[in-house]
Amino acid sequence: MSNTTDPTKNYIPGLEGVIAVKTEISILDVEKGKIIIRGYDLIELAQKKHYTEVAHLLIKGHLPNQEEHEQFVNDLQNKGKVPSPVNELMRLLPRNTHVMDAQRTIVSFLAGFEDPEFLKDTSPEANIEKGTKILARLPYITANAYRELNGLPIIDSHPTYSFSDNFLYMILGKEPDEVSREVFDKTLTCYVEHEMPNSTFTARVIASTLSDIYGAITGAIASLKGPLHGGANEAVAYMLLEILEKGGASVAKDYVKEKLARKERIMGFGHRVYMRKYDPRAALLKDYIPQLIDRHPQGKELYEIYQIVEETMKEEKGLYPNVDYPVGLIYYLLGIPIPLFTPIFLVARTAGLVAHVTEQHANNRLFRPRVWYVGPEYRPLD
Amino acid sequence: MSNTTDPTKNYIPGLEGVIAVKTEISILDVEKGKIIIRGYDLIELAQKKHYTEVAHLLIKGHLPNQEEHEQFVNDLQNKGKVPSPVNELMRLLPRNTHVMDAQRTIVSFLAGFEDPEFLKDTSPEANIEKGTKILARLPYITANAYRELNGLPIIDSHPTYSFSDNFLYMILGKEPDEVSREVFDKTLTCYVEHEMPNSTFTARVIASTLSDIYGAITGAIASLKGPLHGGANEAVAYMLLEILEKGGASVAKDYVKEKLARKERIMGFGHRVYMRKYDPRAALLKDYIPQLIDRHPQGKELYEIYQIVEETMKEEKGLYPNVDYPVGLIYYLLGIPIPLFTPIFLVARTAGLVAHVTEQHANNRLFRPRVWYVGPEYRPLD
Repeated sequence: MSNTTDPTKNYIPGLEGVIAVKTEISILDVEKGKIIIRGYDLIELAQKKHYTEVAHLLIKGHLPNQEEHEQFVNDLQNKGKVPSPVNELMRLLPRNTHVMDAQRTIVSFLAGFEDPEFLKDTSPEANIEKGTKILARLPYITANAYRELNGLPIIDSHPTYSFSDNFLYMILGKEPDEVSREVFDKTLTCYVEHEMPNSTFTARVIASTLSDIYGAITGAIASLKGPLHGGANEAVAYMLLEILEKGGASVAKDYVKEKLARKERIMGFGHRVYMRKYDPRAALLKDYIPQLIDRHPQGKELYEIYQIVEETMKEEKGLYPNVDYPVGLIYYLLGIPIPLFTPIFLVARTAGLVAHVTEQHANNRLFRPRVWYVGPEYRPLD
Repeated sequence: MSNTTDPTKNYIPGLEGVIAVKTEISILDVEKGKIIIRGYDLIELAQKKHYTEVAHLLIKGHLPNQEEHEQFVNDLQNKGKVPSPVNELMRLLPRNTHVMDAQRTIVSFLAGFEDPEFLKDTSPEANIEKGTKILARLPYITANAYRELNGLPIIDSHPTYSFSDNFLYMILGKEPDEVSREVFDKTLTCYVEHEMPNSTFTARVIASTLSDIYGAITGAIASLKGPLHGGANEAVAYMLLEILEKGGASVAKDYVKEKLARKERIMGFGHRVYMRKYDPRAALLKDYIPQLIDRHPQGKELYEIYQIVEETMKEEKGLYPNVDYPVGLIYYLLGIPIPLFTPIFLVARTAGLVAHVTEQHANNRLFRPRVWYVGPEYRPLD
């Protein structure tokens, strides 16, 4: 069976190294070790700006001045209210539902509340409007889907809190302290955008059929759920707790070495694009851990384990932590339930996804690669 | 801002010509004008086999013998029953919901009814089991989401009908005649698999994170909804009816020429891969139209319009019909509501999607292409 193009020449497993889009949004500058978002260094943004300012930069194209920022924060508050059938849908979710599957189902469901013509509208204005609404609603959806699935009462949004404070408030079910709010906001900024991981690529592939932003983000949620993608921050927390249970800091090195000997993966290390460099987000967030360790009876030992695992991975594999490594411990120390770690990543990343869908629609070309057929040769039916 | 690889060399808009996967499932053999499914010519399959036999070929890897076929048909009947919360979810859907968005939301919702460990299982056996269940349930979901959204009573599956007969029965709300059943089954076979269009690519991209088959198919539904992908069969029906209303066969040629002069697209013609050849599925299905034209008071004139538009497109643009062109008229003559045309395509294609997700998981590599960054150069924060 002949391909028109030579498959041995054009087959690119995983599309590694292929440039699939032209973008003004972001790039991983591997040589300089920087994540560039519309010209700015993500680490500088995380140090000096709030998540909502960076979300504005992504969605609306520029950093907001104070007035624009206040308006955007208000906008997110006002748009955050979900139609009441969302609460009924949350009650219908089977108890086994993964929180990411709940996010996926509810974002998909929300498309039907848009006017059909506006839903189809792929103009930048319409995408920014719809995308901001999806971002605004995700904290309520995420925190309350988890609460509903775990028999906890639904919690309403805080009347005055900004986006990330309100999100943390609904997750914890109580007003978070100043340090928690600051650290949580910075983790959201670290997750906001990262060039073109699988979920962002998924959103752009779907959007390229001129399908709407609800569908594109629904698909991205499905992608981010995958263990090779968004699931690593949860896996880090489970691993640190497993080491603690098996004996703590004194067994941490052997735990890692034995896992590696069995060819098992240690989550939270390495990245296809960074390869063997330190993820700058991991470096930034690690510094926040020491001020959180007193919040947990075993916080100090967990941090020791954290450091031993990091050192061992460097010695044994030459691999450095990625962003999910510190986040796994930080969220645990903040008292966030582990099944919410990846869903929180998705909420933060939605700002980047909205930017990518908007850009794809504004300058679209359908993604339609081909295949290398290695199945049976032509055989007529009997 | 420097990319590590030269973007001018590696940028491939739309991934055109890129071979993204190695597959044993299918290929468009453009030179021979054949669609090959696991070695067989899809047109021969459509002529000689039932949809469920071809679905078995795709999902289980081989054409079934009579016993295997009967078992597969029974399996689809038995697995077709949906958990009762699905009916409650259908009642919650806002009236404006597109039927494809209903399919997307409900398939996503159904993931929560699987045992969490089985949901995560990416082995071929688990994917075939879950995929067959999704396929089995989609006719009920599709027909009844439409019925619920349009105030019609929910209809239960027919107790003895096979897959496609039952689907048509639930759509029409009455027992279909022999000719309708035959033609409908053949359209499903024509839609069952088609190498790697955007929706199949979407499913594989999502699956490559080792996310589960529910998520991968949810994403594919989002893709297939796009006007550049699955929406063409609906658009064909609306166009033929518009020409009928504007004066019928006598104005058809001018209608097309005027549209082309305004640079508007005529749906149902051409295909990026086939380019300027006749889609063999369109040739096969066209022959079924004459025996259906008496079913509609204006069926004869619609068929005349159909032929004039086809001829005009050949003369003016050198473009031939693709599969959506005859299907648009056939479904209309069968009395199927137009908003169900693309959702039916999705149901048929699910067999192919299940095969692709299974293959991707069995021999996985994460899709992670890169970008050509053309945004602002690095600028420090003030």
